[in-house]
Amino acid sequence: MNAPFPVADARRALIDRHADLINAAINAVATRAAWSPFKDSPSTKIHGPDKPLAGKAAFEAQLNRPFDLDLPGVIDHVGAEVSPFTGEALGITYPRCDPEALIEAAQTAWPDWRAADPELRLALCAEMATRLYDVNFEMAQAVMHVAGQSYTQAFSGSGPNALDRGIEALAYAAKAMRDVTRSARYERDFAGEAVSLDKTYALVPRGIGLVVCCASFPTWNAYPALFASLATGNPVILKPHPIAVLPMAIVARECRRVLADFGFDPNLITLAVDTLAQPVAQVLVDHPAVQIIDFTGSPRYGGHLERTVTGKLLFTETAGVNTVVVHSVADLDAAARAVARAASLFSAQMCTSPQVVYVAPDLVEAFGAALVAQIDAIADDPAMAVGIMGAIQGEVSLKAVADVRGAVERRDGVHVLREAAPYAHPQFPKARTLTPLVLAVDGSAPDLYAEEHFGPVLFVVTMDADAAVAEATYLARTKGSISSYLYSTDEDFIDRSTPLYEQAGANLTINLTGAMWINFAAAYSDYHVSGLNPAGNACLADLAFVASRFRIVQRRRPSE
Amino acid sequence: MNAPFPVADARRALIDRHADLINAAINAVATRAAWSPFKDSPSTKIHGPDKPLAGKAAFEAQLNRPFDLDLPGVIDHVGAEVSPFTGEALGITYPRCDPEALIEAAQTAWPDWRAADPELRLALCAEMATRLYDVNFEMAQAVMHVAGQSYTQAFSGSGPNALDRGIEALAYAAKAMRDVTRSARYERDFAGEAVSLDKTYALVPRGIGLVVCCASFPTWNAYPALFASLATGNPVILKPHPIAVLPMAIVARECRRVLADFGFDPNLITLAVDTLAQPVAQVLVDHPAVQIIDFTGSPRYGGHLERTVTGKLLFTETAGVNTVVVHSVADLDAAARAVARAASLFSAQMCTSPQVVYVAPDLVEAFGAALVAQIDAIADDPAMAVGIMGAIQGEVSLKAVADVRGAVERRDGVHVLREAAPYAHPQFPKARTLTPLVLAVDGSAPDLYAEEHFGPVLFVVTMDADAAVAEATYLARTKGSISSYLYSTDEDFIDRSTPLYEQAGANLTINLTGAMWINFAAAYSDYHVSGLNPAGNACLADLAFVASRFRIVQRRRPSE
Repeated sequence: MNAPFPVADARRALIDRHADLINAAINAVATRAAWSPFKDSPSTKIHGPDKPLAGKAAFEAQLNRPFDLDLPGVIDHVGAEVSPFTGEALGITYPRCDPEALIEAAQTAWPDWRAADPELRLALCAEMATRLYDVNFEMAQAVMHVAGQSYTQAFSGSGPNALDRGIEALAYAAKAMRDVTRSARYERDFAGEAVSLDKTYALVPRGIGLVVCCASFPTWNAYPALFASLATGNPVILKPHPIAVLPMAIVARECRRVLADFGFDPNLITLAVDTLAQPVAQVLVDHPAVQIIDFTGSPRYGGHLERTVTGKLLFTETAGVNTVVVHSVADLDAAARAVARAASLFSAQMCTSPQVVYVAPDLVEAFGAALVAQIDAIADDPAMAVGIMGAIQGEVSLKAVADVRGAVERRDGVHVLREAAPYAHPQFPKARTLTPLVLAVDGSAPDLYAEEHFGPVLFVVTMDADAAVAEATYLARTKGSISSYLYSTDEDFIDRSTPLYEQAGANLTINLTGAMWINFAAAYSDYHVSGLNPAGNACLADLAFVASRFRIVQRRRPSE
Repeated sequence: MNAPFPVADARRALIDRHADLINAAINAVATRAAWSPFKDSPSTKIHGPDKPLAGKAAFEAQLNRPFDLDLPGVIDHVGAEVSPFTGEALGITYPRCDPEALIEAAQTAWPDWRAADPELRLALCAEMATRLYDVNFEMAQAVMHVAGQSYTQAFSGSGPNALDRGIEALAYAAKAMRDVTRSARYERDFAGEAVSLDKTYALVPRGIGLVVCCASFPTWNAYPALFASLATGNPVILKPHPIAVLPMAIVARECRRVLADFGFDPNLITLAVDTLAQPVAQVLVDHPAVQIIDFTGSPRYGGHLERTVTGKLLFTETAGVNTVVVHSVADLDAAARAVARAASLFSAQMCTSPQVVYVAPDLVEAFGAALVAQIDAIADDPAMAVGIMGAIQGEVSLKAVADVRGAVERRDGVHVLREAAPYAHPQFPKARTLTPLVLAVDGSAPDLYAEEHFGPVLFVVTMDADAAVAEATYLARTKGSISSYLYSTDEDFIDRSTPLYEQAGANLTINLTGAMWINFAAAYSDYHVSGLNPAGNACLADLAFVASRFRIVQRRRPSE
């Protein structure tokens, strides 16, 4: 065991330790090639046999106990998480804090942080990501049991894939901050007099960043928001969804430890736990000390923020209606399998899940049948169903699917291709599961399919492909879309379709089949959300996601 | 004479012609050293004897005539400009257009522009700047006679110095757009399968940019806003102040010619002329096709926009209360002269003009006397007064000064150090002029000096320097400040003061005397407006000023 370094030495060493990581991430976002510093498989071949067990043990040891976070202004302890896999309450309680105390604590902690070298802030965020990767088996259990993601998806999608989004935001923060020289010599002749000024340029953070997290995929958007605000010098208050607190509590715990380890006040990151009955988000949104808001969640509240927040930075990701247009296919089963897998992944509780599949009339019967067969192949194989579909987080999603199913009998032109049904989870017999409902619809029912239904339901719409592209891109413009999909063997059709997607701000995946999930969005390579349609105003991640989180204040004086 | 190139060749040649300019500007904003592609003196030694005369002739030929702009949806012709130098109406009328017709024309013009190579858009903006420099003697006359700036200031401050701000914004637009690779190959193994995707990333503009210009310094903020929006692919509607249309009409004329010369629809830039009785700004602000708003002008309307605009980009520069703190001086006359010149320049109708001069008690009598002497030295020398003070644009500024003067008799602790008075303009006997009112005030009268008075009035406040810094930075935080000034020979005092300015988002000039105007803000080197206080939310110019004016939309498909 080494003796503890003095803090200054430890900080310098940390900057050195993470310099390559940050520079590699900067290179990755420039080239957009595949890259990650992490392994996104939970395989024991990679991680050894002990880490998965230790992660599970850590999770289980936390059940039915107060979560240990030494937050300021604690009012009481609350907790309402129920595992979608066991149906049982996790029994974990979290400190609920006076929002004013969280604000005050952030402001008290802030001066040291704003004065810190931006390179140190970047390195500390990289260290937080590294520590979170170290506890990712615990995180995977936590995400599983609050969100319902399968174990493998919770490990990868809510672990490395999400941490990569965070490091991607760090890369842009580094680029934006390094773009500003900290000093300059200005020499010019004025009216025959040689003038020489020394100028300094300070990066000044804006204020407290509030990160409002969603319930189904909390870490994926939280990491980039957290690191973007924090690296640029702003304290952060994490506001988890009241039914999915544990992942963000783990984040707060790890990040606060890193801050403390390197001599900073841990209250630079706090957790604003609330309850469904007494939500706290709006109090924080309205507080003048909160200057940056990152929101992921429902279009309803996201839209409210978009219509009401002024004088602050607001970054949103909400939802939309993702579409597939099938014009023609080289391999019908491969295309149907790709769509079936995307519609089954996490039971379509993802912002990239397809909901509407437009199929050209000559293909629709065959494609619909193949789609059902491919979904059945997943649903009927317990190992696959477990790994792909996971569980249904909320009763509300069961109801969403049931509501759609109920509408079928009352409508002409709608019929059931595949009934939704629970699948039997071998490990968790009480798991709340539901395989996708698949409906065949004609174009007369857009009221039914053209609104987001948050749950496993897929509409197969018979429509000429050009008309389908027109409608799909109209939906993207008016309802929002994060991921759109197109299948065609006709390059002319593709060429005339792609501009419509581009104008609708719809990121498009063309003819993708095979082992990669078509709705997988890779940090460093795939831009997530265009900001051009109602699915959100921010992109993970680009320069615009970070460039305004800090400001520049200058001084100048005659050179010595 | 060469034969006209085909358009495509001309476009390629234009990109080549301006490549060095744009790259030099990118280098300048990185190093922040002094640089400009232009000469900011109107001297005939630089420009020859003909250009000044030709510019004056062009201006005079325009008087009492309709301004020739072939805009869509013309309703009628209006014009209400009166020269502050002659007191006479310019008699120029401008087409007033149906705002809906301007929007429609912009949308019709847009597809070609959004499809254009970003490098071509950059080159076209550089070409516009170059052409505007070519007509800068005409522009100088126009700015003189609508705004009241002196000839030399109108030439430099509203010409090259403003064009530099535009090219600075272009440099950031180039950086932000070049930061996005247009294509990538993504190769990764998924579940043992090698996946290779080709990805393309399109830069997609947001929508129409509205540039709302101020009356007193219209080009300086308009150029960066215009070029930032235009280069990133957005059509622009210029909305000049109804009493200062001519400069923006010249801008529209020149820029539309450039667009037409290179095969683009000139309606990518239009002019929305209105009248004081029937303002059109809000109609355009509210229009859903307008997605970017750049506003320069009054805190009243700017604040209204800041409180009400949602779902669109809003960049504002309004105003504030700029302060000088005099703690101690090496050379009292030099410091007093520096402040006197800044307070006299354009009769303090600038967003960087100082208004409140806090002087330490031991210095205040001597400094006040020196300040008055230095202002007198300018006011009493007709050549200097003409060149520095110019004219008063609006009656409202005379009234602002008269109102302050009227309050003196009714207050204790306030007395007149120097009376405001017109100076006799040798060339324009009817010029509306006013030399600065200088009042001595004690700290009990902040209600008098702590609000912006838009006109030549200077308050000399007796206050201990530490208390003065506290109050000056409080005013910056609460009322806004674009430029703050500090004089001290005590490095300890400077060291403890600068963090307060930084926290207030107040750009600070320390101990500057001599030939350079202390309120001169150099493009490429000085950041103008921090965005951290009520003086505005945007900075000229940084990455944040441009990075969100376009978005990124991607496509991906399996590699061939």
